[in-house]
Amino acid sequence: MTEAEIVARLRDVATGAAARNLQDDAAVWLPPLGRELVLTHDVIACGVHYLPDDDPSDIAWKLVAVNLSDLAAKGAVPSGVLIGLTLTDEDDAWIERFASGLVRVLNEHDTQLFGGDTVRAKGATSLGCTAIGHVARGVALARGGAQGGDDLWVTGTIGDAGLGLAIRQGEGEANAFLERRYRLPFPRLAVGQALFTAGVTAAMDVSDGLLIDADRMATASALALEIDLARVPLSDEAETRLSDGTKGRLQAATAGDDYELLFAAPSNARARIESLCNAKRLRVTRVGSFRAGGGLHIKGVDGEIVQAGRLGYAHD
Amino acid sequence: MTEAEIVARLRDVATGAAARNLQDDAAVWLPPLGRELVLTHDVIACGVHYLPDDDPSDIAWKLVAVNLSDLAAKGAVPSGVLIGLTLTDEDDAWIERFASGLVRVLNEHDTQLFGGDTVRAKGATSLGCTAIGHVARGVALARGGAQGGDDLWVTGTIGDAGLGLAIRQGEGEANAFLERRYRLPFPRLAVGQALFTAGVTAAMDVSDGLLIDADRMATASALALEIDLARVPLSDEAETRLSDGTKGRLQAATAGDDYELLFAAPSNARARIESLCNAKRLRVTRVGSFRAGGGLHIKGVDGEIVQAGRLGYAHD
Repeated sequence: MTEAEIVARLRDVATGAAARNLQDDAAVWLPPLGRELVLTHDVIACGVHYLPDDDPSDIAWKLVAVNLSDLAAKGAVPSGVLIGLTLTDEDDAWIERFASGLVRVLNEHDTQLFGGDTVRAKGATSLGCTAIGHVARGVALARGGAQGGDDLWVTGTIGDAGLGLAIRQGEGEANAFLERRYRLPFPRLAVGQALFTAGVTAAMDVSDGLLIDADRMATASALALEIDLARVPLSDEAETRLSDGTKGRLQAATAGDDYELLFAAPSNARARIESLCNAKRLRVTRVGSFRAGGGLHIKGVDGEIVQAGRLGYAHD
Repeated sequence: MTEAEIVARLRDVATGAAARNLQDDAAVWLPPLGRELVLTHDVIACGVHYLPDDDPSDIAWKLVAVNLSDLAAKGAVPSGVLIGLTLTDEDDAWIERFASGLVRVLNEHDTQLFGGDTVRAKGATSLGCTAIGHVARGVALARGGAQGGDDLWVTGTIGDAGLGLAIRQGEGEANAFLERRYRLPFPRLAVGQALFTAGVTAAMDVSDGLLIDADRMATASALALEIDLARVPLSDEAETRLSDGTKGRLQAATAGDDYELLFAAPSNARARIESLCNAKRLRVTRVGSFRAGGGLHIKGVDGEIVQAGRLGYAHD
């Protein structure tokens, strides 16, 4: 497909009035009155964030979902996205599958396609997405708000996507649940939107690994953080594969691609947090606690002090 | 520089509160109350939209300026941008120069850096930008609003950037003005913001070539359009190099990269349009007229009918 034909294909996706049928220079959108906007932009590159033979429909899902996960971490309601595709030799079938994945992820999360751009270049395919959502004034949580004595919480289970990626790369027995957790991260928008009502003091999403992201929250909050590996929540499927105590937990907590919510809250908020996550049918687990000082302190499953060689995916 | 170091460098650029010091998952921004937002996303790729040895400061300028040009075409006041950089082997000096160009273009147009993402990948460098601006409700002009009898207008001069690119590629004698017009497109924000007060019915920017973009406006408006090549405004520098009548004018009108505003207005708006462009010290020229029917009709400098082989840069 030419760039013009790709835009024509995406026109079927961009059904909101703001997109102006992708026939104008820009989208024109009236934001919800009096709400703050939450804006994020993430890029995923072929060979770095997804595999060349991943299903293009899943790639489209992941491109949007990782951005919506950032909105979820700020408690935002998603409004729309703009997509920038730097394509190389993708054929018509690839673009069809990609467009179908876009429809799927946007419909699932009630989000519009506002617009974007498509170019053909040599080299590696690179896909950018800007996601825009909205939140009540003043309630968007930052990473740096944790207080000494706060608990550290995480939603869902950790390490599934890392195991799913390993399976995709030929390591370990196939497992539909783990592979799905790698292919189709699910942004925790509903819980994110409710968190600010529960006394949460800081929030972010887990994208590079539980330990590295938790360390970033502790640094931003100028606090020390102790994480209890025994408490890191594993799915049944992950538990089977990571049965070797501290080592297995460390693998899960450094794998990345989880797209779960990580947040801090005072201990008097425990009941409210558990109640609201129960209401959204999402597991939530206390995995650590903040205190005055600095540094990340990791406790193994037998109470031993753990020195982690790496905390997660560090971008270089 | 690692990705973290690049973000640290850009932190000096992202001085607005909305950017949260680039230390959070997302920007949080309160848009101007009651205004519509104008949103656009353009990608520029190395070897396609800029040359590998272009000054990184100029590349940053161009990346932002081509997006602000889309905002100008809708009459918007720019607020902020998000930048997605897919880098390959750019070194520290490149990133320093790029960051300095970002500061320059953002300051010049009173625009914030809201956020973005940086990844390292193999292949070709690709740079994305989402620009967000605002406009009074209901006044953002579309491409498709031209009426039969309307004049077609263009700001500034046409063809300079194409000649500047040719010089950069070794064709023709060096000329600072023409090269600058290629390197540093200047979005026509001030005039764009004033146009809706002058009875303008349709507007867009000229990026792929005057003829191809004018043809798009005529198609979107379901009208025929006659363009008079003799009226296409050339700078003195371009006039010297494109002195061969219809052929030279055709070269200018199909070169692209002009980033001037192209707009339609009824003949009773002529005085107002000239007056407001005069006030902003920007040349403005009537280059054609719309009528019922279809197709682009090109009149040569001697009044002859011209069949153009190509109308501009068609993306494929």
